[in-house]
Amino acid sequence: MKNDSGKIRLAHGGGGRLANELITKTILPCLGGDGTAILTDSADITAPPASLCFTTDSFVVKPLFFNGGDIGKLAVCGTVNDLAVAGCEPIALSLSLIIEDGLAIETLEKILTSTAETAASAGVKIVTGDTKIVEAGAADGIFINTAGLGAKIENANIAFDRITPGDKVIINGTIGDHGMTIMSQRENIKFDSPLESDCAPLNGLVAKILREAGADIKFMRDPTRGGIAAILNEIAASGHCDIEITESDIPINPIALAAADALGFDLLNIANEGKVIIIASPDSADAVVSTCRDHPLGKDAAVIGTVTNCSQGEPFVELLTKIGGRRIIQMPYGRELPRIC
Amino acid sequence: MKNDSGKIRLAHGGGGRLANELITKTILPCLGGDGTAILTDSADITAPPASLCFTTDSFVVKPLFFNGGDIGKLAVCGTVNDLAVAGCEPIALSLSLIIEDGLAIETLEKILTSTAETAASAGVKIVTGDTKIVEAGAADGIFINTAGLGAKIENANIAFDRITPGDKVIINGTIGDHGMTIMSQRENIKFDSPLESDCAPLNGLVAKILREAGADIKFMRDPTRGGIAAILNEIAASGHCDIEITESDIPINPIALAAADALGFDLLNIANEGKVIIIASPDSADAVVSTCRDHPLGKDAAVIGTVTNCSQGEPFVELLTKIGGRRIIQMPYGRELPRIC
Repeated sequence: MKNDSGKIRLAHGGGGRLANELITKTILPCLGGDGTAILTDSADITAPPASLCFTTDSFVVKPLFFNGGDIGKLAVCGTVNDLAVAGCEPIALSLSLIIEDGLAIETLEKILTSTAETAASAGVKIVTGDTKIVEAGAADGIFINTAGLGAKIENANIAFDRITPGDKVIINGTIGDHGMTIMSQRENIKFDSPLESDCAPLNGLVAKILREAGADIKFMRDPTRGGIAAILNEIAASGHCDIEITESDIPINPIALAAADALGFDLLNIANEGKVIIIASPDSADAVVSTCRDHPLGKDAAVIGTVTNCSQGEPFVELLTKIGGRRIIQMPYGRELPRIC
Repeated sequence: MKNDSGKIRLAHGGGGRLANELITKTILPCLGGDGTAILTDSADITAPPASLCFTTDSFVVKPLFFNGGDIGKLAVCGTVNDLAVAGCEPIALSLSLIIEDGLAIETLEKILTSTAETAASAGVKIVTGDTKIVEAGAADGIFINTAGLGAKIENANIAFDRITPGDKVIINGTIGDHGMTIMSQRENIKFDSPLESDCAPLNGLVAKILREAGADIKFMRDPTRGGIAAILNEIAASGHCDIEITESDIPINPIALAAADALGFDLLNIANEGKVIIIASPDSADAVVSTCRDHPLGKDAAVIGTVTNCSQGEPFVELLTKIGGRRIIQMPYGRELPRIC
């Protein structure tokens, strides 16, 4: 008979002795520190700040481990970044695991250790959790949900309706690295220099930008699924404004571009996990770019476009191409990249 | 070629136009009301109360629809009940969906409508959400995560270390109905009178109890996975006290008992989704039982046991059997009931 030790089994999800063992012997030690709070079904948040943000994301990325990260790191970054671009400092995360029977406990431990390290690096505590086990074939290894609470940063005023013509569109670095890393690994394409996901918690960078530029920051959003094409279209539609971006100003990693060309993708549509699109007043744009460039996560920051027009007809996003043409950037249809995050 | 309309497809998860359509044409209309907040990646909670609770749960119940509920109703009740037993009124929920390619949109709509109805009946708003799609075979229909924020109820003081010898153990009704409903449906066992899950939001009942009994309520917990056996063992271990329960005092639905006997289960280990175990001071116990009995979710409430001893040796839970014997109730091992919630 096969030795079952070292693998997650359905019985680990039954709410009994084995479930307790999984929590106390595997999950809590990997999450480290004062992780005891995660044992409780709910966590107390006393004296919360006057204004909170609340967000949730589930993560189903495939493969579970990729160059530059894994599903645990991604689950922390994704939720931390949602809070950051809403103008908030993350204060607490929840962590909910759906695990497939048969997952190696060693794999779970690697993911949880990475989860804890990323949370620590972002300065946010994981305060409550849940674990469910489903039978082999009913899930794909592991899915992770993180929900997050954030405290509004003073002076942050992030709202579509603050966007006005002349505002600049800024990004903190190269586009498409996360998506192309995942797709290249799935297609088993190798490059001479490794392509790496940009997966990173942006709260430190965003807080620095907001401290320095304050109300000059009109809007922020992290261009994840659908890439900058999806996010710029969302900003145009919800802000009722046209946006013009300049192809030659968009920071590009040549390896990501080569991968996109090889696989037939447009980098504009490809997911990022450590990028933020910032809409800033024209006078502040250069200072925001330098603030980014002084931060490890913003070294390749650039102004990539301008808000050209507001409140007139159907809003659109236009690209000034390298050869001097103009092309409408549409909202991607959706077929591009399943399970990218 | 097969007509794909009416089914969830992988492309619905790509973050593009199809994803927007799924959100605006299916998810938001089903969630009803001012569901617009769920479109945003994060929701603002302004002027939060002085003390909050934060909780999370993922739901993987199989089948998705069962007598007395479905995965959507369960996802709201589970998180609302976690907040309630922590002494909180729920104020906001997040809703995160992991959907398998091929799920009928009609099925999704039924689940979301039930989700919204349950949230409305519990008086809690769904304020932020997320949707991921995975390929056929990578998940089982749909998994749902809800995280919840609750406001501490004044006078509520729920803590293991408040439990003292003489305290009474109260439950608001019959045990094991949820688990035996799920297991009977899975095993395709039919009864003359239908067995029905007790799945219900307990916040109304719990708030009433706390308003009336205040600090006389020492501890509460909802006996879900592992049933009252698991929860009483957890209370004994964490409260460092022995607990004695009386078999003949435990409310039992005879159909659930017949199902448990037929399938070889012990109802003490079986999950509930609309029950709360209350540890109350001896003087208040009768009043707490009457408060429960005046509420639709507490008609069969009863005192089922007593805290007999604290801080001495290894704590244990003992059952006084109907025939006058004594039996130690152990923490269930975990193999009993996969995917019960």
